[in-house]
Amino acid sequence: MQTLDQIRVVMVNTSDSGNLGSAARAMKTMGFKDLCLVAPLDPPTTAKAVSRASGAADILHHARIVDTLDDAIADCQLVVGASARMRTIPWPLLSPVSLGQIVEEAPADTRVAILFGREDSGLTNEELQRCHYHVTIPGNPEYCVMNVSQAIQVICYQLRQSLVEAPRLSQSPRDVLGEAMEGWDSPLAAQQEMERFFEHFEAVMLELDFFDPNNPRQLLTRVRRLFNRARLDQREVNVLRGVLTAMQKRLR
Amino acid sequence: MQTLDQIRVVMVNTSDSGNLGSAARAMKTMGFKDLCLVAPLDPPTTAKAVSRASGAADILHHARIVDTLDDAIADCQLVVGASARMRTIPWPLLSPVSLGQIVEEAPADTRVAILFGREDSGLTNEELQRCHYHVTIPGNPEYCVMNVSQAIQVICYQLRQSLVEAPRLSQSPRDVLGEAMEGWDSPLAAQQEMERFFEHFEAVMLELDFFDPNNPRQLLTRVRRLFNRARLDQREVNVLRGVLTAMQKRLR
Repeated sequence: MQTLDQIRVVMVNTSDSGNLGSAARAMKTMGFKDLCLVAPLDPPTTAKAVSRASGAADILHHARIVDTLDDAIADCQLVVGASARMRTIPWPLLSPVSLGQIVEEAPADTRVAILFGREDSGLTNEELQRCHYHVTIPGNPEYCVMNVSQAIQVICYQLRQSLVEAPRLSQSPRDVLGEAMEGWDSPLAAQQEMERFFEHFEAVMLELDFFDPNNPRQLLTRVRRLFNRARLDQREVNVLRGVLTAMQKRLR
Repeated sequence: MQTLDQIRVVMVNTSDSGNLGSAARAMKTMGFKDLCLVAPLDPPTTAKAVSRASGAADILHHARIVDTLDDAIADCQLVVGASARMRTIPWPLLSPVSLGQIVEEAPADTRVAILFGREDSGLTNEELQRCHYHVTIPGNPEYCVMNVSQAIQVICYQLRQSLVEAPRLSQSPRDVLGEAMEGWDSPLAAQQEMERFFEHFEAVMLELDFFDPNNPRQLLTRVRRLFNRARLDQREVNVLRGVLTAMQKRLR
């Protein structure tokens, strides 16, 4: 199990400093800090870079600038190169999900480097051969030329998922609506309250002569199904019963 | 199970056309085509937008431009707003992984809209209340201000993961409600029908003098949240509107 601090993003020969800024922002939003630049064309502190970094300019200011890829990865035990192309000699090729799993299961204190190449031509074959694995973001087979900072965003997102977010989730099937309602502002209604609400609803429908005489139960069945499906909270039940009571007052 | 063609990216009041270009590229790399722009500050065909789109300029040229959010989502049965902020009234909040699962398990032919807000201020509360759910990309608690095109990249990546690459991850959450609604007996209601229902509901509440004069919008917000959460089908909307019409007849 790794922490995000042990993962370095290495950008090789980046030519547009705007991409350095976008990459820094992408990293920081996902909780990464360690950026290393191999011979960038412009320094990471141009106005364009800092502007694109937005609140992540600190990542740019702390970025390490080195002359060669070897300098960037000398202390790393796991080196992975981002690559969109298939090469002449096939290399072990990971999806971002598999990369997350491999990093998560690496021995403690493994230092990891993820390499991203030039805007126009990616990493060279020589650079790719420095890597333990390659990682490819699966995409549109007809057009998968991602901007380098977008690729960094996706890889950082997926690594955060694997290392930080997924371990929080239970392995068993989950109830998405139930989870989405965590931290709700009112307790869910109990069955008893729901039944009183359905009775109240039926009473008002009777006063309104709303029922289909040929199939009087059909409406109530649908109403029951609907409100149960939504998992009403107590305040919502009170609101709906308030509506019914107001109706009754006006009908009488 | 949905195809990516049924998913629309909606960008609201985007001010920097460079972001439109980056968003188009992000979409196309992940296999998405349907981009709708609500009142963008600049057209999507500025030189800056086209340059950032790189090989995805066709997405910009085919983007639909509309005046209002309602126009953008009128035909959609599932509307999800990207949001980083917690609001006064909590709304069902999904992770990208849960969103992927919900979309994957929604009834066939569900049209989905994912809404992305302004660069500086995101979506308004009113826009967020148009949504069935909100989605938040989990990130660095100390800095999670993502660029809009980066957020689109992550959401499109995760949706592609869920729908195309890994439709059945053993540890991924399940959309219990969506599954339980397979083989449903009526098509789900479209956004347009829901809006007419909410308007009708509001009109009847006005006739009933039901509103709290100190906080007249609170009730409607809660009603909107409730019925969106339940994913109403067309017949249910008709039943509820029938109830409202019956009430109006008796009140007059």
